[in-house]
Amino acid sequence: MHPNDPRLSSFISVDADSDFPIQNLPFGIFSTHAHPNKRVGVAIGEFVLDLAVIEAADLLRVQVNPVFNQATLNSFIALGKPVWQEARKKISELLRADHPRLRDDTALRAKALIPMHEVQMHMPMQVSGYTDFYSSREHATNVGMMFRDPANALLPNWLHLPVGYNGRASSVVVSGTEIRRPMGQVKAPTDEAPRYAACAKLDFELEMAFIVGAESALGQPIKIEHAHDFMFGMVLLNDWSARDIQQWEYVPLGPFNAKTFATSISPWVVTMDALEPFFVEGPKQEPQPLSYLQQSGAQGVDIALEVSLQPQAASQATTISRTNFKTMYWSMAQQLVHHTISGCNVNVGDVMGSGTVSGGTPDSYGSLLELSWNGQRPLQLEDGKSTRSFLEDGDEVSMRGWCQGKGYRIGFGEVKGRISPAKTS
Amino acid sequence: MHPNDPRLSSFISVDADSDFPIQNLPFGIFSTHAHPNKRVGVAIGEFVLDLAVIEAADLLRVQVNPVFNQATLNSFIALGKPVWQEARKKISELLRADHPRLRDDTALRAKALIPMHEVQMHMPMQVSGYTDFYSSREHATNVGMMFRDPANALLPNWLHLPVGYNGRASSVVVSGTEIRRPMGQVKAPTDEAPRYAACAKLDFELEMAFIVGAESALGQPIKIEHAHDFMFGMVLLNDWSARDIQQWEYVPLGPFNAKTFATSISPWVVTMDALEPFFVEGPKQEPQPLSYLQQSGAQGVDIALEVSLQPQAASQATTISRTNFKTMYWSMAQQLVHHTISGCNVNVGDVMGSGTVSGGTPDSYGSLLELSWNGQRPLQLEDGKSTRSFLEDGDEVSMRGWCQGKGYRIGFGEVKGRISPAKTS
Repeated sequence: MHPNDPRLSSFISVDADSDFPIQNLPFGIFSTHAHPNKRVGVAIGEFVLDLAVIEAADLLRVQVNPVFNQATLNSFIALGKPVWQEARKKISELLRADHPRLRDDTALRAKALIPMHEVQMHMPMQVSGYTDFYSSREHATNVGMMFRDPANALLPNWLHLPVGYNGRASSVVVSGTEIRRPMGQVKAPTDEAPRYAACAKLDFELEMAFIVGAESALGQPIKIEHAHDFMFGMVLLNDWSARDIQQWEYVPLGPFNAKTFATSISPWVVTMDALEPFFVEGPKQEPQPLSYLQQSGAQGVDIALEVSLQPQAASQATTISRTNFKTMYWSMAQQLVHHTISGCNVNVGDVMGSGTVSGGTPDSYGSLLELSWNGQRPLQLEDGKSTRSFLEDGDEVSMRGWCQGKGYRIGFGEVKGRISPAKTS
Repeated sequence: MHPNDPRLSSFISVDADSDFPIQNLPFGIFSTHAHPNKRVGVAIGEFVLDLAVIEAADLLRVQVNPVFNQATLNSFIALGKPVWQEARKKISELLRADHPRLRDDTALRAKALIPMHEVQMHMPMQVSGYTDFYSSREHATNVGMMFRDPANALLPNWLHLPVGYNGRASSVVVSGTEIRRPMGQVKAPTDEAPRYAACAKLDFELEMAFIVGAESALGQPIKIEHAHDFMFGMVLLNDWSARDIQQWEYVPLGPFNAKTFATSISPWVVTMDALEPFFVEGPKQEPQPLSYLQQSGAQGVDIALEVSLQPQAASQATTISRTNFKTMYWSMAQQLVHHTISGCNVNVGDVMGSGTVSGGTPDSYGSLLELSWNGQRPLQLEDGKSTRSFLEDGDEVSMRGWCQGKGYRIGFGEVKGRISPAKTS
């Protein structure tokens, strides 16, 4: 059976609402207290399958040298799409309920299957390039209405190209990393002069990202029909943003300090192969894009997304946004092709952020900026007494995403981060 | 004697106008036809000193494992400033006219000193981060006059912070790499709709860059008094720019396709130690910057800069700009501190571009955009018949820079690149 077949089941019991059934098999980097070396694992239900152990046992040999006993996924990813697919097929077989090799080998199971609560997750890739797009029409419209001309909220280029900018790769961090409130220059329009201050408008941005799976050559644009050969998988991404710093700095060369302090990603990379059944038509593109951006077939992905916020003192988190990745106007293929159209090369492990995913209704916006309409409509949290316009110290933001199949879901796990107070000296 | 002492001389004869006297000793990565493995070398006159050979001969052992028989400088740089300084001192001694060890060892000299015309230079570092600043007041004013409000050419934030943006690290290439004219989306204000076309306003930008020499921690801004501990050296940088693509894409998130297709750097990294005698006062900063940006002492560097342009059919190059790096308004220390002020971390090998270096007179502008005033005043080239508003196919742009000492110069060599025609399909 194909690894995506909904009829497949594993000898590891997996709940119907688990993010990690046998149809998913996302790759990540983990370590344990007992074995602190970083290595490649695959999530299955409430367990992690240690691929370094599986490889050493000669049950998953994808090339002569070990590629799973490594601190990042880069070496594995660089082997290319046929190898990813072959590895996924073999891992699927190993975990099948009707496949005895691992199921009945008690000693190997004890070594290779580790309860998820015992592992520490790490950055899945070494990220040498991080680009962030701006591909939600609703988000771009909301931001344009707030900060530019409400009557012409969408800038003239927006419907013609997937607007993007270079982000800072060094500060892309894994879920759970503490996010320190940034210091920086701020100046309100009414202020005489800028001040050095702690960010007072700290925000999240709900995004997805795809991970580049193959390098392209400098000067050789990727054609849209080949774009999917360059994509390994996807993660959740939180593009932390300092709105007051951004407002003062971003004209004319774009956001810098306001974004470079941290970008968080979820630790499990869900492969494009696992997502394949969930591709759907995206929004109609009108006007028709230029020929190099024209695509055929389903290019959106039906991924349900949720954001929750929990103040430090609160006993519960409040779900503050529910939206779907399928609302994105520009597809990932179009983003990648546009990225390389002038000749820019891409590398294995590059992170390509989608831009904030905002839906069409106020409860589906992907940032506090939009949810509170720049502080004009503070959000009520579920403890009944707290409100939020922007993030406060101690707040934890968590984002989740999943594709809903019949009786199972292909989930992304979680990307979360807690705000720690600014260091003012 | 200190390695910077003007009285020092080498047993290798070095002309007074050579870029590479014994007081310089820049580091680079090279290979030869006979030995195609990349390794670390130091330029001395018309020769390259092969540090892998010197290290293997036990004349320069900076740590247990070899650091010079490597394809990039990153491992050496990561050892830190005391090691850079110790290595430079030892290399200086080895090359001194009055020091017999290498001078009189004919066999070792034959192996370790390679004529420069026999070597192929490569990227000196693996670049994981590239940031480009915008720190020439004259350049920012010129651009503002052309594209925004001539009466308020400098944007409100410009005098308060060193404006910068994230560049694309993957396409930073070494001098000599062919630069393909980019394709992209362009739309003149009078056009009805954008077109997919070859860039018609291809330009260079004359810049310097400093190379980060030590990593900083996420969430830990670098203080200005420590900034120089994080700088290894400097190179020339050409920030190739597609003006027509930039004009259409850059609002609101900054330049992307217009810059990401290529950035060229010179192959020899001149150390901050070699540049130390050439630090000078920069322009007076008015208004006074916020406290985190306040610095004392000489923070500019007196580096003479020249740009030449040679059409493919021309028998000679025309020098089209002469300027000086000391005109830059924001210092490198201020750029680095501002880069990290919100908590962004930096890594060994990061490239920090200065922004276009333009002087106050039309013959000292650092881009064709300014030199031809966006095509309104085409440049006359020295062959008497060619003019240039922007770059044409086959044009070679070369940039040179040097600090002039008494009887010697600390030079950067050259960064050059030739334009090849666009691939239109």
